[in-house]
Amino acid sequence: MTPARLPTSRDVLAAVPRVEMLARETPVLTHPALDDAAGAHVFVKAECLQVTGSFKIRGATNRLAQIAPAQRTAGVVAFSSGNHAQGVARAARQFGMPALIVMPSDAPRVKIEGVIADGAEIQFYDRNTESREAIASDIAHKRGAVLVPSFEDPHIIAGQGTLGLEFARQVETSSGALEHVICCTGGGGLITGIALALETAAPKAKIWTAEPEGHDDWARSLAADKILSNAPGTHSFCDAIVTRQPGEMTFAIGRTRLAGGFAVSDDEVKAAMRFAFDRLKIVAEPGGAVALAVALKGLPAPLRDRRVGVVVSGGNVDPALFASVIS
Amino acid sequence: MTPARLPTSRDVLAAVPRVEMLARETPVLTHPALDDAAGAHVFVKAECLQVTGSFKIRGATNRLAQIAPAQRTAGVVAFSSGNHAQGVARAARQFGMPALIVMPSDAPRVKIEGVIADGAEIQFYDRNTESREAIASDIAHKRGAVLVPSFEDPHIIAGQGTLGLEFARQVETSSGALEHVICCTGGGGLITGIALALETAAPKAKIWTAEPEGHDDWARSLAADKILSNAPGTHSFCDAIVTRQPGEMTFAIGRTRLAGGFAVSDDEVKAAMRFAFDRLKIVAEPGGAVALAVALKGLPAPLRDRRVGVVVSGGNVDPALFASVIS
Repeated sequence: MTPARLPTSRDVLAAVPRVEMLARETPVLTHPALDDAAGAHVFVKAECLQVTGSFKIRGATNRLAQIAPAQRTAGVVAFSSGNHAQGVARAARQFGMPALIVMPSDAPRVKIEGVIADGAEIQFYDRNTESREAIASDIAHKRGAVLVPSFEDPHIIAGQGTLGLEFARQVETSSGALEHVICCTGGGGLITGIALALETAAPKAKIWTAEPEGHDDWARSLAADKILSNAPGTHSFCDAIVTRQPGEMTFAIGRTRLAGGFAVSDDEVKAAMRFAFDRLKIVAEPGGAVALAVALKGLPAPLRDRRVGVVVSGGNVDPALFASVIS
Repeated sequence: MTPARLPTSRDVLAAVPRVEMLARETPVLTHPALDDAAGAHVFVKAECLQVTGSFKIRGATNRLAQIAPAQRTAGVVAFSSGNHAQGVARAARQFGMPALIVMPSDAPRVKIEGVIADGAEIQFYDRNTESREAIASDIAHKRGAVLVPSFEDPHIIAGQGTLGLEFARQVETSSGALEHVICCTGGGGLITGIALALETAAPKAKIWTAEPEGHDDWARSLAADKILSNAPGTHSFCDAIVTRQPGEMTFAIGRTRLAGGFAVSDDEVKAAMRFAFDRLKIVAEPGGAVALAVALKGLPAPLRDRRVGVVVSGGNVDPALFASVIS
C-alpha cells in the first residue's frame, strides 16, 4: 500500500471556497467569568452553531466536492456515531448524491434524525459485535460508491482546517494574535487541520488536545512520540470523540505540530456544558465541551494570561441528557 | 412636561461606535427545517448570544455613554425584570459607575446572578403590591443618580436599533435584502429601534410585532391606532416581554412604522425554544423565542416566500425551566 499524501497548509487554503458553499462562519464568544476561571484571555469558537450542529460539514463538503460528476450517481458511504454522518448527509444532498451511513444502533436520537432529515439511508450496526468498517466498505464496494472516512483523508483534514483560518482571523486584533488553541480530539481530523491552518495564519500558536480521562490516547501518544491505544472497554459519555487511538495520517501530522494534551473528567465536561448554557447561551454536546472544560479548570503556566482559543466543536445532544446535565 | 424628543435613524447610526465598545456582532443562523415550516427564507438573528445574554446591553451602553464624567460618581438606577438590569449593570461596570437595580423578587435566578456578577446592588420589590417606578425614582432622587428607563428613552431606543443595522447588512446578499422582520415586543424599545435603523438600511422592509397571547397590546394598539392595554392579571411565562401597554414614545415611533402584529400561545413558544435547542443549538428564553414561534407556525401571505428576519432577543432562562421545556 502506498502511503497516502499528507495534506498541507496550502490544502486548507484551497478548501475555503468549497467549504463556504455549505458551512457558515461561526462566531467567537467571550465571557469575563471564563477568563477569571481560566486565568487567561479565552476565545470560544462556537462551532456547535455550524450547519448540521458540528464542524464535520467542513470536511465532508471538501471531500464530496472532489468527486467527479460521473462518479456521483453511485453516491457515498460513511460510518459515524453521528456528527460526520450528518455532515456527509447534508453535503451529499447538496451535490445531489445518494448517501448511506453506517451508524451504531445506540447513536443519539438527535444525530439519527439529522441524517434522516437530509434524506440519507441509515444502516444500523451493533457497536459491541460488528465492525462498522467492514459493513461500510462492503456496501461501498457493491454500489461502486465512494467511502468517506471521518478523519484519515487529506481532503477531510483540510476541510476541517478551515475552522482554524477563520478562528485566527477572528481573534487577531491590535491586542494580539491567537497564542494557544485547545481542541477536543477523537480521531484528530479537526485538530490536525487546525494545526495546518495555523502554520500560515498564526505561526506562533501552540495547539493542545483535550480528551476525556481514560480516552487520552492523543496526550499519551504525543508524550511517547508513538501511537498508543486506550484500554478497551473504557466508558465516556463524550460519544463523539471516543476513538481507540490516533489515526496514522492524523498522528503523522500531529506528532510535530501539537504541543501536548489535557484530560478532563465527565463531571468537568458536565460543568462546561452548564457554563456554555448559563453564560454563553450555546448548546454544547459532551464531546464538544471538552476543551472548554480544560479552560474552566484553570490553565497551567504556559497558557496563563495568554490569548487562548477554545473550540466548542458540536452541539448534537439529546434533550433528555442535556436536561439532566443542566438541572 | 415638554414632550421628549423622538430618536431618528441618524441617532441609531451615531450609536454604533458607542455600542461597539461593549456589544458584539451576533450571528445570523438559518435552517432548512425552519424555512419549510415558515414557508419563507428565514434568517434568525441570534441575539441571545449577545454580551449579558440579551440585546439590552446595546441600549444601556448607548445611554450610559451619554452621562457626563462629573455625573458618573452618583451612578445609575434602573428597574427591570432582568435583561435590562444586566445590560445596565455591565455598562455601569464598564464606565466605572455604581449601579442599583430594582428587580422583582421572583425574577429568574440566572438574571439576578448576572446582575450580581457585574457588581451592581439589587433592591427587590413585590410585583403585586409595590411600584418599581416609585422605588427606583425615589432612590435615584436621594442619590442624585441617573434613572435609566428600559425603553422610554431616545438613547435606549437608538442603541437597541443598532441590531437592525447589523441584521440588514448580514442578510443583504446578491439574492436580495431583508423584506420582513418579526421581533418580540414588550415595551417596544427594540422593535422601534430596528424600525428606525431599517429606514436607511432596508427601507422596503415591513416590521411586525410578536407577542404572547393575552399580551398582544402592540398588535391591538397598532390595529386601533391608539394605545390599548392588556387585561390586568393575565399570565404568560414570557417574563421578559410582559408589559401592560406600549410606551408613549415607542408607540409614537411605531404607529406609522410597524406593519402589524402576531400573537402566539405558550405552547408555541415552548416549541420554538425546543427548535432553537435541537436545530440551531442556541438557548432562547421564553420572551426571546416569541418571533421564532410566529415563523414556525407558518407565515401568512404577505410574508410567504419572502426573506424574513426573526429576532431571538435573549437567552436568560433558568435551567430547571429550560430542562422542563426541552424534555
